[in-house]
Amino acid sequence: MLPIRECVNQTPGYVPGEQPQTTDYIKLNTNENPYPPPDKIFDTLQQELTKVRLYPDPVSTQLRKAASKVFGVSYNNILAGNGSDDILNIAVRTFVNPGETVAFLDLTYSLYETIAKVHGALIKTIPTNENFELDGPLICPEAKLVFLASPNPPLGKHLNREYLEETCKQATGIVLIDEAYIDFSDENHWDFLEKYDNVIISRTMSKSYSLAGMRVGFAISSLGIIEQMDKVRDSYNLDRIAQTLGSNCFEFQDYFKQIWQQVRNTRTRLTNSLKNLDFLVFDSDANFVLASPQWIAASELYTKLKEQKVLVRHFKHPRINNYVRISIGTDPEIDRLLEVINKLKNAT
Amino acid sequence: MLPIRECVNQTPGYVPGEQPQTTDYIKLNTNENPYPPPDKIFDTLQQELTKVRLYPDPVSTQLRKAASKVFGVSYNNILAGNGSDDILNIAVRTFVNPGETVAFLDLTYSLYETIAKVHGALIKTIPTNENFELDGPLICPEAKLVFLASPNPPLGKHLNREYLEETCKQATGIVLIDEAYIDFSDENHWDFLEKYDNVIISRTMSKSYSLAGMRVGFAISSLGIIEQMDKVRDSYNLDRIAQTLGSNCFEFQDYFKQIWQQVRNTRTRLTNSLKNLDFLVFDSDANFVLASPQWIAASELYTKLKEQKVLVRHFKHPRINNYVRISIGTDPEIDRLLEVINKLKNAT
Repeated sequence: MLPIRECVNQTPGYVPGEQPQTTDYIKLNTNENPYPPPDKIFDTLQQELTKVRLYPDPVSTQLRKAASKVFGVSYNNILAGNGSDDILNIAVRTFVNPGETVAFLDLTYSLYETIAKVHGALIKTIPTNENFELDGPLICPEAKLVFLASPNPPLGKHLNREYLEETCKQATGIVLIDEAYIDFSDENHWDFLEKYDNVIISRTMSKSYSLAGMRVGFAISSLGIIEQMDKVRDSYNLDRIAQTLGSNCFEFQDYFKQIWQQVRNTRTRLTNSLKNLDFLVFDSDANFVLASPQWIAASELYTKLKEQKVLVRHFKHPRINNYVRISIGTDPEIDRLLEVINKLKNAT
Repeated sequence: MLPIRECVNQTPGYVPGEQPQTTDYIKLNTNENPYPPPDKIFDTLQQELTKVRLYPDPVSTQLRKAASKVFGVSYNNILAGNGSDDILNIAVRTFVNPGETVAFLDLTYSLYETIAKVHGALIKTIPTNENFELDGPLICPEAKLVFLASPNPPLGKHLNREYLEETCKQATGIVLIDEAYIDFSDENHWDFLEKYDNVIISRTMSKSYSLAGMRVGFAISSLGIIEQMDKVRDSYNLDRIAQTLGSNCFEFQDYFKQIWQQVRNTRTRLTNSLKNLDFLVFDSDANFVLASPQWIAASELYTKLKEQKVLVRHFKHPRINNYVRISIGTDPEIDRLLEVINKLKNAT
């Protein structure tokens, strides 16, 4: 008998969205940025490539300093992760003993559940209302760690700010606010960091900074929290190229602000178009929308779109199995999506 | 009071070797390959860079297939890690509950202790003899996981093969054989994988494949073990460029075999030269040697070499604090090291 931990053995494991490694799909399923980063981020790459035989900076100093300028906090308050998934994982392993509780909403990023279960933590899911939103502050006194994403997938809306703040105030454990999609909205939660010493904000460069392929994320918090998480972090968790491209991307704020606005414009257009095509659609603060077709099963829509080489996300979760989540693509990509949907609708 | 886990709070954290990000040092302190990978590995990079906005293949298929050809096992038996440090960490989290035991030698890769402690595991260290070697099989019935590096740092010699095999045979838990330095020797332990279902072999591309900067490592084991470790693995643990450069490096076996031989030739020359300079030196199977100067304190030698811009590793561990560990550099680098040592010796 091999000594597999029961918590690992009993967990099915996380299932990421489909990542076809061919380029013939219109890929609207995993919330990547449809626009590439500026070519200039590769200008310093040649120099880095001559050093691949050497270990990277274990503490990603340049990257954290570049992040610091944009986030407006000292780089000592920033921990670099191999994507923000790494940050979420480190948080569970820093603050939660197996058998202790991690809390999150019943509809949110599904990785929270997987990493908590694999760690052997207990899980408390907090119900959302019929609109998939918080009905009040999240109260879970036994939780050592609360994960709250704002904007919250798969809905894409910000959590109610007062409820969120009250959650931070009342929590006896850590509250990690996952801001993966923050740059596609006007809000953020920096002020909670200053007011509450139990708050961590996580950020990723996968969505707004067009670097999903490079795995760069951050935790931002107090020195005391960052110092403890740093012990749990793998000592060389970001390679040279990820550190370099991440740093470089932060230099192009004007470019990225422009594409974030473009994504928001396209989001508005997609939302309106889907409503006209008889979908129930929620307004989104993120780079995706959750939409339910009123004239076809969502699972069937997913399949028929895939046949036409348009990939969206369909979840089997009972509360949203009649929805699809559609990432905001370029305008031509969204045009093609709408064209295919229009044809399908006319054929029903 | 923040809910920091006691096991994290009590652990000082891993201290990696110095990684000066300037290039004016002769860097012989962290066992990197002194020779760069062939330029041709960068030929396919341009294509990959156009896709950095897209998530990488979550399961590193191409990389594992490339590794499969070299390792001679199916790619289904291979798990890709963000360096082999990631693999070691995954192993602890897959097989060991907090409060259960991880065993390793009293002198070995110090990260084993850090990751076990941070996880809340108990630690059993098995004493080595006065030559820092095993005196018999490692017997620890309570260990859920045994880490054994062969060649074993900081000595650099292979563990006694019979003792190692007997350890696998008698272990009630998992035995992970860390082959980080294997390519600088003639041996390996593939046969143990076939004979014992509790064995994992870990490999890294940081040393022999000149990719320390890119963080690529592997676990090789049975399907049942790989499947469970895969659940603990972060779902996007290797970025696009790491996967690409790792795959590409495996294509250049002739080149790498030649530089491994070159490192071995230089290792022999360094060993002999140090003996002539009145060092106690152990024969090494790895890309470093452990050596004790008989005419100066090792800590002082370390400092004086550093003043001359030659960086070697000095450990504060009481059993080896009169040794330095010297990575095998290029011949000109080793010439310079020997020149500086010679001058220091003449000045004493």
